[in-house]
Amino acid sequence: MATPTPMHENARPAEPAPLLVTMGDPAGIGPEIVARAAAAGALDDAVVVGDPGVLRRAARCCGLQIPVAVSDDPAGRAAAPAGTLFVCPPVGLPEGLAALPFGAVDARAGAAAARCIEQAVAWVRAGRGRAIVTAPIHKEAFAAAGAPWPGHTEMLQQLAAAPGEAPPPVRMMLANDELRVVLVTIHLSLRRAIDALSIEGIEQTLRIADAALRRAGIAAPRIAVAGLNPHAGEGGLFGDEEIRLISPAIERARAAGIAASGPFAPDTVFMRARDAAGKPGEFDAVVAMTHDHGLIPVKYLGVEQGVNVTLGLPFVRTSPDHGTAFDIAGRGVADPASLLAALRMARRLAEG
Amino acid sequence: MATPTPMHENARPAEPAPLLVTMGDPAGIGPEIVARAAAAGALDDAVVVGDPGVLRRAARCCGLQIPVAVSDDPAGRAAAPAGTLFVCPPVGLPEGLAALPFGAVDARAGAAAARCIEQAVAWVRAGRGRAIVTAPIHKEAFAAAGAPWPGHTEMLQQLAAAPGEAPPPVRMMLANDELRVVLVTIHLSLRRAIDALSIEGIEQTLRIADAALRRAGIAAPRIAVAGLNPHAGEGGLFGDEEIRLISPAIERARAAGIAASGPFAPDTVFMRARDAAGKPGEFDAVVAMTHDHGLIPVKYLGVEQGVNVTLGLPFVRTSPDHGTAFDIAGRGVADPASLLAALRMARRLAEG
Repeated sequence: MATPTPMHENARPAEPAPLLVTMGDPAGIGPEIVARAAAAGALDDAVVVGDPGVLRRAARCCGLQIPVAVSDDPAGRAAAPAGTLFVCPPVGLPEGLAALPFGAVDARAGAAAARCIEQAVAWVRAGRGRAIVTAPIHKEAFAAAGAPWPGHTEMLQQLAAAPGEAPPPVRMMLANDELRVVLVTIHLSLRRAIDALSIEGIEQTLRIADAALRRAGIAAPRIAVAGLNPHAGEGGLFGDEEIRLISPAIERARAAGIAASGPFAPDTVFMRARDAAGKPGEFDAVVAMTHDHGLIPVKYLGVEQGVNVTLGLPFVRTSPDHGTAFDIAGRGVADPASLLAALRMARRLAEG
Repeated sequence: MATPTPMHENARPAEPAPLLVTMGDPAGIGPEIVARAAAAGALDDAVVVGDPGVLRRAARCCGLQIPVAVSDDPAGRAAAPAGTLFVCPPVGLPEGLAALPFGAVDARAGAAAARCIEQAVAWVRAGRGRAIVTAPIHKEAFAAAGAPWPGHTEMLQQLAAAPGEAPPPVRMMLANDELRVVLVTIHLSLRRAIDALSIEGIEQTLRIADAALRRAGIAAPRIAVAGLNPHAGEGGLFGDEEIRLISPAIERARAAGIAASGPFAPDTVFMRARDAAGKPGEFDAVVAMTHDHGLIPVKYLGVEQGVNVTLGLPFVRTSPDHGTAFDIAGRGVADPASLLAALRMARRLAEG
């Protein structure tokens, strides 16, 4: 997606602004996977928005000897040596975060995680970062801190809205090297997800997906729409949502110049879109009606490769496709693969 | 599954009975993939239940020079040389089948396909075949012939029932080298599939799956049950079918000695069950509530590897996971990969 026009006086248009990586919940594996990413050289164009003590502790947990630089200016990243864990702590972080026990819900941890997200949004909107990559937060810690949002997405939506404006409609995209899936519905029971489908909601998903893929550099994104019912309803024999809702939404999107097609049988459209060695995918993305139609194929080859992207925000935001993993936090064993994939994806999306 | 006790006077217990491969619709790709399988040496322990003229034409279409033997006794297969296309035509096939145009619905083609299935069932039930592998039929041709069944499964179910008895409950299993999935519901709209779920239906699926896997040689099959809703309902937050229906069914199955577990989040259970190089699957099969939850992962890596198995019949029946492909029939280009996989699967299941 497009980097917003730099608006802050410190912005240096000659240097691309850094990626902004939020540390996530200090009691979870977020800081550890961030430290591992830095040690792997994957944060040389990124600033970690977080607490220096928490990140130093994480590096120790992982047995990593990496230089840590602390600054209040993300632009300082450009002058720091490669391999540096470059931390920009937001003003107003709680004290004593590096002493919090691992794997426990704590209001201070939730407050710190929220503060880092807030700061990252402020910087990216001011052109001082080119994309946000968020390490995992813990919903209960977030709630304990009094944060009024159930998770990242809702918080980012609200922070993205101008004062008095409605939050922008967003959609979740899950992607790996082979497949991009954009979801029309997410956290609803399957019955309620079916009830929630509408021509407008499907068309909006197509518009959001098309815009995001164009910003990512795909000139005329080929978007396949998966049906809801077996065999995409087999002409109305197994359900009429394809006829009543999905086809009209595709027609509207096509009339708006979007290369949408379908509805296709859910059981084969993801296979057709899959971009594998020797078999280029037929589509650039698949729009799925339900959480699991979309996520089953993305996750089938291994969760660690998946990246979560929030489409519809006025900035790029990606995240690893896993949680805080409290059960292994502090043990230095967390796998940074999904974070590394989220960083690569953010770079690609912010380039367009 | 167990080969039924030989009952026919011609059965030769010293030789394993051959696999019985029905030719499918003569106007589709069935005969061609059968001819290709024979040429590949994959039918050396199999008899083709079909029309010799149709199979000779198919071999010609594929540019194959293979010996064709015709007999009314499946047991003759044992004495025929390797590489022979050994055909046992059922009594009562329509005339002129080899002159039917490719790719067109024809009542004679449908009648011939049905007659071959009927004969194969009679032979397998008499111990003269050890399993049935069915090439694809065309539903419209089947209907044009006056066959009262919508497809193979319903026909086999009825033929499997003793006179006056209800057909046995069956379930569809889709399997490839990595994953086995057994479906609770199949050809219903997603709404009706949700309505159709019951403790009894899920428990019955578990019993059928467990029995079939045991007969296939797995001593204590580990069966994962996928939830219906996102995150398997997240404790009732996103739907209550897991609490009301799926968990009680699992409890009942466990009480009956079945190693069932779950309900698991649909988006990760298939990945966990996947048996890939270096990552043995955690489960021997996954029971899925809906057609597409189950088929999306099975098909994701490529349809040509999938095999359809009908569980619950008193004999083994497998089939390739594709249709008659009227658009390419007669051109000699059909890929026999799924039929070859169906043959391998039938051998494995009939061994147990």
